[in-house]
Amino acid sequence: MANEAFQQIAGGVTAARGFRASGVECGVKKKGGLDLALVVSDHPSDAAGVFTTNKVVAAPVTVSKQHLVDGKARAVILNSGNANACLGEDGLKAARRMAEETAALLGVPASEVLTASTGVIGAAFPIEKVTAGIPALVHSLTPMGGGLAARAIMTTDTVSKEVAVVLNINDIPIRIGGMAKGSGMIQPNMATMLSVVTTDIGMPAGLLKRALVAATRVSFNRITVDGDTSTNDSLFLLANGASGVRIEEANEKYERFVEALTHICVELAKMVARDGEGATKLVTIHLKNAGSDEQAEIAARSVGNSNLVKTAFFGEDANWGRIICAVGYSGVDFDPEKTKIFLGDLPVYLDGTGLAFDEERAKVILSQREFEITIDLGNSPGEATFWTCDFSYDYVTINGSYRS
Amino acid sequence: MANEAFQQIAGGVTAARGFRASGVECGVKKKGGLDLALVVSDHPSDAAGVFTTNKVVAAPVTVSKQHLVDGKARAVILNSGNANACLGEDGLKAARRMAEETAALLGVPASEVLTASTGVIGAAFPIEKVTAGIPALVHSLTPMGGGLAARAIMTTDTVSKEVAVVLNINDIPIRIGGMAKGSGMIQPNMATMLSVVTTDIGMPAGLLKRALVAATRVSFNRITVDGDTSTNDSLFLLANGASGVRIEEANEKYERFVEALTHICVELAKMVARDGEGATKLVTIHLKNAGSDEQAEIAARSVGNSNLVKTAFFGEDANWGRIICAVGYSGVDFDPEKTKIFLGDLPVYLDGTGLAFDEERAKVILSQREFEITIDLGNSPGEATFWTCDFSYDYVTINGSYRS
Repeated sequence: MANEAFQQIAGGVTAARGFRASGVECGVKKKGGLDLALVVSDHPSDAAGVFTTNKVVAAPVTVSKQHLVDGKARAVILNSGNANACLGEDGLKAARRMAEETAALLGVPASEVLTASTGVIGAAFPIEKVTAGIPALVHSLTPMGGGLAARAIMTTDTVSKEVAVVLNINDIPIRIGGMAKGSGMIQPNMATMLSVVTTDIGMPAGLLKRALVAATRVSFNRITVDGDTSTNDSLFLLANGASGVRIEEANEKYERFVEALTHICVELAKMVARDGEGATKLVTIHLKNAGSDEQAEIAARSVGNSNLVKTAFFGEDANWGRIICAVGYSGVDFDPEKTKIFLGDLPVYLDGTGLAFDEERAKVILSQREFEITIDLGNSPGEATFWTCDFSYDYVTINGSYRS
Repeated sequence: MANEAFQQIAGGVTAARGFRASGVECGVKKKGGLDLALVVSDHPSDAAGVFTTNKVVAAPVTVSKQHLVDGKARAVILNSGNANACLGEDGLKAARRMAEETAALLGVPASEVLTASTGVIGAAFPIEKVTAGIPALVHSLTPMGGGLAARAIMTTDTVSKEVAVVLNINDIPIRIGGMAKGSGMIQPNMATMLSVVTTDIGMPAGLLKRALVAATRVSFNRITVDGDTSTNDSLFLLANGASGVRIEEANEKYERFVEALTHICVELAKMVARDGEGATKLVTIHLKNAGSDEQAEIAARSVGNSNLVKTAFFGEDANWGRIICAVGYSGVDFDPEKTKIFLGDLPVYLDGTGLAFDEERAKVILSQREFEITIDLGNSPGEATFWTCDFSYDYVTINGSYRS
């Protein structure tokens, strides 16, 4: 994707200078495969995180929040296959030990290591397997390791998710790169299940947090797969300043950084929605002319979460009645008589009544792997873009026996 | 079911004295079958209704609300196969004409005929087919017609839904009977898709409305199939006083009537949840010791609506992590460290940690057609009972191509 402000490049969490990563198999996943990942900055880094709003919070989330209090982090260790959630004191001990063992081998304070886990909730956490894997994980760190790390955090994901960009600030190329995992239990509020973003710009932790929150609001907070908000959602941003460029305040350069960071987060979020459990389609919902941006988001989320809308997408059925119905019960204020609905660019509902639209053309639009719908409430200028996927048999297959 | 206060009897909307009903096929349903129903009181009746809270309201809902302003109704005409929703002025004309043609043949004012429709949203309403069917519908009215009417309002329902009770007031037997339809687009707020309840007690319309709202709150408002609130939800209660017993105020006799009416509504609501599209199980969620009854309901609804919980029920997988997770993102205030979860009577999660429970026994519980789960938040005495169903492949099959 080309953009004047920044350019997309290959890579993920090791695209920026001064970051190394690795991924190994330590035996947490019953079915085998990479399940332990590490991202490390070679330099002291400022860091920020946003986390699940679920009242039930996994142990690594608790530990990472504590470790981020000073706004510094050198590394993130992540495992897949077990969420380390709902395990009481044992879980906290395990999450702390993951950080400590990693820190000892890296020669940094344990408080500078963040942790994240994803997988089954409530199953005993195999901390011995994890700690046994950490030496190999540390020894295999390389500046090319972003791809392995991205694969090691996958659970029901069918593809690994990475994106990176370069932008020029003060005529120096700044890189931002990220990875994410997420496929089910996805209605982040804040984040996808797990994501790590790194950059070689320098920035105080407070400003970094502000940038991350702004980017999250229109990316990870605008996707849904199944409306379930996980106990483990974590998004980390590490900025190590290795480019030599540092931003100290919210100026024009900061805005350009936020724009590029937002692109990273939007692309990762869309990858998560596209890879939703059982999903065959990525659907972009444009909600326009709502009372406010917040109202637009509420209405778009209601449509994006409707099982009836999502099964109709799967069936490639132009059932716009379910779309207007989902707006109707979202709680937002609007007038159905002023509302318009488009599938792609095909109007199907205008000002209170359905149109005798071309069903064949609708079918062609809905049969694409990616398509957009636009819902115009004909009101004030509030708007939101939201991403969802369709709902297929495979979601039921995947989730009918996830623990086994 | 035996109960000191009332007894369940056979029948539905014609169980009470002075009511007749009928059902015919008029050709609205593409696949054929009964699709037009009529319930008539032989005497002037007080009446009350509760309706969908969706901002998008089907034409028959608008017309019925207008006709209920005076609290009087003699008849309800209902069709399945077409929702008469989102059709603008044409829809309103059609709904009014349904009432007018029925009223003319019954010899009552059109304002005393209520209307309801269920089926596809936005498809042109075949009013000529409906009006052509009304004479046969009126001519076939009988005091035994409740069953035919209950069948004529079915859409994706697999069984018709009727229940009736008798209770003694002033040593005179009072009867209450009802029918309902509903299977998808079910998260009534207020009602199931469509339901009509009749009684031969007499009661002023205001008091009748109060009784209906009280019964709805703990029945139709406590079920979900897919979290979608329909545009057409309507619940009507007609009281014709044919028993000779009349209640004028909220006294002990009124309370006994409300108790029996609540039973009718709970049983119909459970039938709707049990018959949820693709459902193989009815699951009762007891949410105990929440901060308030309202908080209990919010938490129970969140669990009942979770696709991950519902697919695990389908897979008979004791994945309690998804249950506590759904309570966690419900927004209610609670302490996971004080929370307990039981599948049937089997504890699986106590005070912050999962138990090493007997998986075989859990499987036996979850493999039943009906089972209960209890979630105890260990807080104040708020509680709620909520009903949901599991989520199977067939939900996707049914809803992938509903319009065709």
